[in-house]
Amino acid sequence: MPASQLRAFFAPRSVAVIGASTDPVKLGHAVLRNLVEGGYVKAGQVYPINPKAEEILGLRAYPNVAAVPEPIELAVIVIPDKAVAGALRECGQKGIPAAIIITAGFREAGPEGVQREQEVIAIAREYGMRLIGPNVLGVIDTYTPMNASFAADSPPQGPMAFSSQSGALGTAILDWAQGGQLGLSKFVSLGNKADVSEIDLLQDWQDDANTRVILLYSEELTDGQRFMQVARQVSRVKPIVAIKSGTTQAGARAVSSHTGSLAGSEQAYQAAFRQAGVIRADSMQELFDMALAFGYQPPLRGDGIAVVTNAGGPGILATDALEHFGLGLARLEPATIQALGAALPDAASANNPVDVLGDARADRFEAALALVAADPNVDGILVVVTPQAMTEIEATAQAVADLSATGDKPVLACFMGAKRIQPGIELLMKAGVPNYPFPNRAAQAFWAMAEYRRIRERPEPQYAQFDFDKPAIRAAIDKVRSEGRLTIGDLESRQILEAIGLRIPQSELAEDADKAAEVSRRIGYPVVLKIASPDILHKTDVGGVKVGLRNDAEVRDAYELMVYRAQRYLPDARIWGCLVQQMVSGASLEVLVGMNRDPQFGPLVTFGLGGIYVETLKDVTFRIAPFSAQDAAAMLSELRSSALLDGVRGQPAADKAAIADALLRIGQLVQDFPEIVELDINPLVVFAKGGGAIAIDMRLVLDGNQ
Amino acid sequence: MPASQLRAFFAPRSVAVIGASTDPVKLGHAVLRNLVEGGYVKAGQVYPINPKAEEILGLRAYPNVAAVPEPIELAVIVIPDKAVAGALRECGQKGIPAAIIITAGFREAGPEGVQREQEVIAIAREYGMRLIGPNVLGVIDTYTPMNASFAADSPPQGPMAFSSQSGALGTAILDWAQGGQLGLSKFVSLGNKADVSEIDLLQDWQDDANTRVILLYSEELTDGQRFMQVARQVSRVKPIVAIKSGTTQAGARAVSSHTGSLAGSEQAYQAAFRQAGVIRADSMQELFDMALAFGYQPPLRGDGIAVVTNAGGPGILATDALEHFGLGLARLEPATIQALGAALPDAASANNPVDVLGDARADRFEAALALVAADPNVDGILVVVTPQAMTEIEATAQAVADLSATGDKPVLACFMGAKRIQPGIELLMKAGVPNYPFPNRAAQAFWAMAEYRRIRERPEPQYAQFDFDKPAIRAAIDKVRSEGRLTIGDLESRQILEAIGLRIPQSELAEDADKAAEVSRRIGYPVVLKIASPDILHKTDVGGVKVGLRNDAEVRDAYELMVYRAQRYLPDARIWGCLVQQMVSGASLEVLVGMNRDPQFGPLVTFGLGGIYVETLKDVTFRIAPFSAQDAAAMLSELRSSALLDGVRGQPAADKAAIADALLRIGQLVQDFPEIVELDINPLVVFAKGGGAIAIDMRLVLDGNQ
Repeated sequence: MPASQLRAFFAPRSVAVIGASTDPVKLGHAVLRNLVEGGYVKAGQVYPINPKAEEILGLRAYPNVAAVPEPIELAVIVIPDKAVAGALRECGQKGIPAAIIITAGFREAGPEGVQREQEVIAIAREYGMRLIGPNVLGVIDTYTPMNASFAADSPPQGPMAFSSQSGALGTAILDWAQGGQLGLSKFVSLGNKADVSEIDLLQDWQDDANTRVILLYSEELTDGQRFMQVARQVSRVKPIVAIKSGTTQAGARAVSSHTGSLAGSEQAYQAAFRQAGVIRADSMQELFDMALAFGYQPPLRGDGIAVVTNAGGPGILATDALEHFGLGLARLEPATIQALGAALPDAASANNPVDVLGDARADRFEAALALVAADPNVDGILVVVTPQAMTEIEATAQAVADLSATGDKPVLACFMGAKRIQPGIELLMKAGVPNYPFPNRAAQAFWAMAEYRRIRERPEPQYAQFDFDKPAIRAAIDKVRSEGRLTIGDLESRQILEAIGLRIPQSELAEDADKAAEVSRRIGYPVVLKIASPDILHKTDVGGVKVGLRNDAEVRDAYELMVYRAQRYLPDARIWGCLVQQMVSGASLEVLVGMNRDPQFGPLVTFGLGGIYVETLKDVTFRIAPFSAQDAAAMLSELRSSALLDGVRGQPAADKAAIADALLRIGQLVQDFPEIVELDINPLVVFAKGGGAIAIDMRLVLDGNQ
Repeated sequence: MPASQLRAFFAPRSVAVIGASTDPVKLGHAVLRNLVEGGYVKAGQVYPINPKAEEILGLRAYPNVAAVPEPIELAVIVIPDKAVAGALRECGQKGIPAAIIITAGFREAGPEGVQREQEVIAIAREYGMRLIGPNVLGVIDTYTPMNASFAADSPPQGPMAFSSQSGALGTAILDWAQGGQLGLSKFVSLGNKADVSEIDLLQDWQDDANTRVILLYSEELTDGQRFMQVARQVSRVKPIVAIKSGTTQAGARAVSSHTGSLAGSEQAYQAAFRQAGVIRADSMQELFDMALAFGYQPPLRGDGIAVVTNAGGPGILATDALEHFGLGLARLEPATIQALGAALPDAASANNPVDVLGDARADRFEAALALVAADPNVDGILVVVTPQAMTEIEATAQAVADLSATGDKPVLACFMGAKRIQPGIELLMKAGVPNYPFPNRAAQAFWAMAEYRRIRERPEPQYAQFDFDKPAIRAAIDKVRSEGRLTIGDLESRQILEAIGLRIPQSELAEDADKAAEVSRRIGYPVVLKIASPDILHKTDVGGVKVGLRNDAEVRDAYELMVYRAQRYLPDARIWGCLVQQMVSGASLEVLVGMNRDPQFGPLVTFGLGGIYVETLKDVTFRIAPFSAQDAAAMLSELRSSALLDGVRGQPAADKAAIADALLRIGQLVQDFPEIVELDINPLVVFAKGGGAIAIDMRLVLDGNQ
């Protein structure tokens, strides 16, 4: 897509409002009024389209777009749903490159709506038009300026670009902005996302000079892999903060009925956002809190925060909160502490948190702030002020604002209260110093800044490329398919494991008890015996696995009992015999490597320690494939039980490199063969460091639709 | 303490301000002005005490309290620290029953201050006076009305009683109240708590008709056991919401320097608050959010919440948030759904969350709210409103206010935005409907209400009383003490374990290798051998434990090696020989039961699964002794790994009753013998259900100061 097409949404030379109305309560009137009153009429031409009107809001009206003598760059469509397709076709014929469909009644409104939406998509494709919507509040660019929405007001300018899938939430966002709590560069209500999605907006906003932070509210993301690719690039340039709603089960049900989309699993979103460098906010409040810090303050270059306060109690609350978010209290240089000691009264605390005492006037704050800001160990400053008897609220706010204006370290404020303190808060907001009513919210904003620094400092991901024996894998899959099966068990998966370079235990199929004993002697005792059947996936459930067999007699007995039982429990199962397998000993740990396909993001690779850690403690971590070697290494340290990999209670450390290698190989396998929809290596037996790992058992499920 | 003494703090018949000043910038002037302007002069007599003034603020001044001809019920002391003791003594001589010491410079200000504080405590005791402070902002009762503080204003009346250890935070709290965000019944700044503490306030506020919810900000609690006792009673009558600051490591350091108190461990506070029915808030914001719901809305009688909204996206956010806090979306009756379907447009959602659509005017909200409120499955209602084009903000707020005024179910609001929506928010606040800017905060307030219902529904705790062989325990302790030791190991702790009725493995001391073999034959093979020495507590560190010995030869070898090694590693250790112990087999699980003494709350009993679960996963839970059988049972289900107790992967369920019994017995032991400061049973081997448990090893540490 050429960049000029999104330009037409934000800074068009001319706009047609199709459905512009003379009736002030109609949305078509509100859109036109916003274009006029929002100042766009000075930036470009506005053409009301209405077959029944001559003039609306002082602008000459036209019966249709064809009748407009000049070229049109953007059409805003606000007419009944059934008429949209026709109007859009006229736009195409006129050569209009971009259209915003405000009208609802499409995909979100049942089968007929779905059809209508497909029709407008087809028309847009035919004429090479880009679409925003349908079912949206509109689009706003405060710098053009252009308000092409039916929102009640135009928000103030500012550094935040906001994409909201929900138009209703958009009205609240714009109202917060109106209330002076946010400054916006751009606002887009994405609605049904028939064409333009978050991906396009991220690409467009990456280089937008007016935008310092990108905010997303999304209920679903489509084309998750592409989203991740684009977000990873954009997040190197400016922070992306996102809310993904519908994360819990009940919430996910609400999404389905609201947008008709299939919700991605929470785990997949978590992994995807982390890999893409998107900072996740859990609530609108968190989103705004972080956005203010990113939008108005310089980057945080380290984790050392200094707290300056006139209140012991709130100082403790701030310290608690910073520690909760993993930030450190900056260790002040001795010279700073000495200078603070000299500048402050005896009873003050010259250590961080710096307590300038309850009777501090603005000059004392100013002196303390200057000293703290000059300390090389201080990366960010949090000023916590309570409205005490002697507190000079506005003058103190001015001192904080001056520090923020002249320094290059981020300054966040926490002026606590709601009445006497209010003039101070307003002064801070005007000066671009984010104020938070409570210390924990400022601490979280600092956390987001620290997190973004870590995101920017990450190396570009390097994707390993292994040389697999693809024909062998293909052959194994084709064989299973040709037999009408979708699951690949033990015996056949060995071929795949070998083809991707993972070690497997020695093993051989035995068709009778004598052969089993003979094979066992060759492999060497002790051995494991497993029932071999394409129809039995959960072998332990039918007593189909026996470990630690020590001699011929035990192997023969086990063989016969196993086959007898399998036939009794599953009379229709094809029994190929039993697999005799080398008994792997000296193992340090059993782990699980798995994969299933997420509808939004694709292959979601799982890692956890085997047995109860996965089953009972649900101690697992995830990545979307492809992921880098760094990601694989990070997975090993993300488990609650990660310490076990390093060896505890006299156990040696496990061969972590071998686990990471297995994760990367599985990541590539499931990318190379998209027909694999589920996979489990359970267990992967990991030996002590340097000893490698052996995949004891693997199970795969193929896509039934391919 | 007679109730009348605290009455003197909140509704005295007369108040003397010792240090009342004519200088408007002095605190002594501010206190007097607040008594006058806050309206107290109409409720009682005010006597400024100032030897240099005739009259202040129109009131006749006296040189000292003795010169006041009438009785005085409350003295507020605002004079330099060194003069406080003298003034307090004059108060005692005058027979004044209560004094607020606003002056700072006491315990928080170093050794001299500590001495000053001890002096005023002694004087108060001598004259039977109660004290609030020193180092406080003051005391306010909005219903008397009396503002005996140097705060800038008097807060509005309301249902919340607030105790703040920090005076500085108090100024912020009062400013929030001034800003219309809170209504207070009483406010107390507790400062150094030389006498009156949270415990006294809880007792007093339990029956205060003007108080519906009690709010605490505490940096430390002293006399934790008594606090728990009182809080448990009071929380049955009205909710207590508390912030305990200084919870993290860095925070705890700040507390130490701020108040000079020893911080209680986070785990002890968590356990204590839970047992006492105190609802913990993690931030001031959470405290206020919960306080509004408790203060202004009726109790929540079940967990079924109905969401009514004009916005799909925010509806999803609300649903997510409710689920996050463990609340359910109420399942509406078919009749309700049908009626909603009839009352709402086709595109609306008549299911919960009820979406009345973006174009809903107030009448549609009103109809939906009435139907939802009448549904028997709905226990609470959350109204989420965005300021869309058609939204009648004030009329909708009025409909919500009317519902709240007439109904008996709690109604919380989330009117989102900051400008157009503002008149609606103000209307709601005046009508006593708490409004939260974001759905997740309303959801958390509902969570607090649900939690409080669970607290009230808890049965009164019943404390088991076991019949221990106390003389045997006393004898064991005395023997160790008499030898100048503080630690009790294996051999001696057996006596204590038997005395409290816990099963122990058969075992016997052997002084040489032959005796060890003889004892082993008597106990029956296999056996465990352990080095027996009063000086070796961590036996495994010196190779002092050998399990699974199968015959005489193995026992002899193990004995000799063990003693040789112990002598080599610890040449000064007294070696008594080796303990031969029955090898416990058939065990289903090993667990740990421990205890250490928390400086604030006393005996903190720990429970966790043995081995890596405790050591690596830190999967443990805590109670303060005494705790009830219900508490003991609850501990078993609070671990992340609790499922292991119920049996996983073919293991049988463990004997949970035996574990709970052991926890209760240990709880009683450490109460009966306060000289035990640390204790570990590790492991307690637990058999399958009905099989009981055996304490394999116990270690105790005695108090060195007794």
